[in-house]
Amino acid sequence: MKKRLFTPGPTTVPESVLLKMAEPIIHHRSAEYGELFAQINKGLKYLFQTENDVLTFTSSGTGAMEAAVVNLLSPGDRALVVRGGKFGERWAEICLAYGVQVEPLDVEWGYAVEPQQIAAKLQSIPEIKAVFTTHSETSTGVINDIETIGQIVKQHPALLVVDVITSIGTHRFLPDQWHIDVAVAGSQKGLMLPPGLAFASVSQKAWEAAESSKLPKYYWSFSAAKKSLAKNQNPYTPAVSLLVGLKKSLEIIQEEGLEKVWARHQRHARATRAAVRAMGLELFAKNPSNILTIVKIPEGIDGKLLLKTIGTKYGVTMAGGQAALAGKVVRISHMGYTDDFDILTAVAALERGLKDLGWHFELGSGVAAAQRVLTEENGREL
Amino acid sequence: MKKRLFTPGPTTVPESVLLKMAEPIIHHRSAEYGELFAQINKGLKYLFQTENDVLTFTSSGTGAMEAAVVNLLSPGDRALVVRGGKFGERWAEICLAYGVQVEPLDVEWGYAVEPQQIAAKLQSIPEIKAVFTTHSETSTGVINDIETIGQIVKQHPALLVVDVITSIGTHRFLPDQWHIDVAVAGSQKGLMLPPGLAFASVSQKAWEAAESSKLPKYYWSFSAAKKSLAKNQNPYTPAVSLLVGLKKSLEIIQEEGLEKVWARHQRHARATRAAVRAMGLELFAKNPSNILTIVKIPEGIDGKLLLKTIGTKYGVTMAGGQAALAGKVVRISHMGYTDDFDILTAVAALERGLKDLGWHFELGSGVAAAQRVLTEENGREL
Repeated sequence: MKKRLFTPGPTTVPESVLLKMAEPIIHHRSAEYGELFAQINKGLKYLFQTENDVLTFTSSGTGAMEAAVVNLLSPGDRALVVRGGKFGERWAEICLAYGVQVEPLDVEWGYAVEPQQIAAKLQSIPEIKAVFTTHSETSTGVINDIETIGQIVKQHPALLVVDVITSIGTHRFLPDQWHIDVAVAGSQKGLMLPPGLAFASVSQKAWEAAESSKLPKYYWSFSAAKKSLAKNQNPYTPAVSLLVGLKKSLEIIQEEGLEKVWARHQRHARATRAAVRAMGLELFAKNPSNILTIVKIPEGIDGKLLLKTIGTKYGVTMAGGQAALAGKVVRISHMGYTDDFDILTAVAALERGLKDLGWHFELGSGVAAAQRVLTEENGREL
Repeated sequence: MKKRLFTPGPTTVPESVLLKMAEPIIHHRSAEYGELFAQINKGLKYLFQTENDVLTFTSSGTGAMEAAVVNLLSPGDRALVVRGGKFGERWAEICLAYGVQVEPLDVEWGYAVEPQQIAAKLQSIPEIKAVFTTHSETSTGVINDIETIGQIVKQHPALLVVDVITSIGTHRFLPDQWHIDVAVAGSQKGLMLPPGLAFASVSQKAWEAAESSKLPKYYWSFSAAKKSLAKNQNPYTPAVSLLVGLKKSLEIIQEEGLEKVWARHQRHARATRAAVRAMGLELFAKNPSNILTIVKIPEGIDGKLLLKTIGTKYGVTMAGGQAALAGKVVRISHMGYTDDFDILTAVAALERGLKDLGWHFELGSGVAAAQRVLTEENGREL
């Protein structure tokens, strides 16, 4: 049986990238590696649409989140943390682990943060040193309006740190225009790579903050990474094979063009949502991200059995809900190496699983609705 | 031109492992991954020859070193650090970054630490909470007598933490018998994998210390890793493709048998050393490790040009010296996926490079000497 992955990370890796990573390994202190890393760093600046340095870490995305906290802050500093899902909560957990005082801004799951609430918090607590938030919150399927949040935070001395782990290479994101100080990303999402690499773009304002930061750091040190970057190197042995793959996946993105990549994700999100509604199902997110569609499991259907059926009977892996959403939703990713036919496949598998479990709907209504959206004129998609 | 790698990490990855890692990626929260990780954890216990849990991190070996420091100690704790090379110095750097008071035991490069010096230090500073040292110090080519050090430290409340990054799967190492509390390793050495995974075995005594440790941690948390391990999972997205490769490389090691793997490295080290002496060259390490041979570059030969010649003209990559040894030595690794013919290749390439640069010696004396050692009776090798 063919296996297909529709999970919000890891995502499917293109065959051409897999084969690059299977080439004999090169040494990370060689001239060949230096040339490779130089090209990667150019590609990362394009991907991030930034003039700032983008630092690379061998870790999962969580590692780069921890790096952002420990390089910018000092013990006792106050940080505003938007907690609207599992990954927003992770920012708070990391801050607390390092003795940073968390000022939480709790947002109901499924809703975007209201930017004006951030403005109000910054006004009432002027000592806030940094605002931590999430662009695309994968646990809830929500996209936050980082552009507006950036306009608000720039009027305040606080730094703006954004988890773009799933939005980079999938969602429109312009950190320099939007006044983002640090954006952290991971390899196994829009970048179409296996997990194991994480990234952080760092603004001038963030570098200045890093100079006075007193939290302890070694592996995560921004300044060590910057020093090595100037020589097209890494402070510690990097995950060379993943970097070889990264060069290829950045080329694939550059070839398609970032605007088209963003538009494709948007079209796929719209098609999946249209399919879900046509099948008589409800969406979870009120402000939906383009990187995944979260479908509420209808009453009378066993959510875990649904995922298991789709997985074992049809070879299609989707994700369940996290934390409070466990067993209550299906999460279907459209991230990365996904084309129109993949979207039809995902919808068709969902239709079959629901039919097997006795959900009443017009079979084929989902794929038909998706097909209609996917074949609309380009001009109407954006 | 065929390319060959004789660097002390990354080492050559077997073709069968490369191809496993090129298979379509699986999801890290699936039953399939749970089964894979369970098998890996059994394999890691065999590799480490331990009954203790072996934790896996997505990072370079340095990450696991930092994990050992932050999980065992509290600010202001005193730690004895054996500094006999670049990697011993790294322990001190990490401790200092976290406010741990370093009691250095400095050892001249090229020499092993004298275990009795550790005993003396522990006696004169009874508050020492942990001893950090290196098994095979790759910057100097030295092997330290961890067995004796273990006997000494076990008579003291201090923990013994050992960097076995290059010795695991290459050198005889029995952490349970030798009373090692934490041993840290990396993937790109004896394990014959690309870089990107790091490991830490943790003794009962170390778990007890971890409970009272006050240094901040999140990504490196031993307790988070242990909690997930019980479910055959990882706290954060692991480097799945490297783990798929790890399962295969552990199988390769189990098939050969660890005793035979250790004997092979010893035989290869002896052969390389015999070759070097036969060519009229000197070895750097007084207490040489089996994982690499460090050759002093003879007077009148440009060390950087020698490495460049061997690399560009013959496709063979060896390593130069680090820190104070830069330009003064050639480091030839015998780690991992290396057989007798590879050793002859390395020696032959060194002969050619030296001949090209005008060194006077009997051409073929090196390969002949290596060939003689490599064909000795098995019984004489150990």
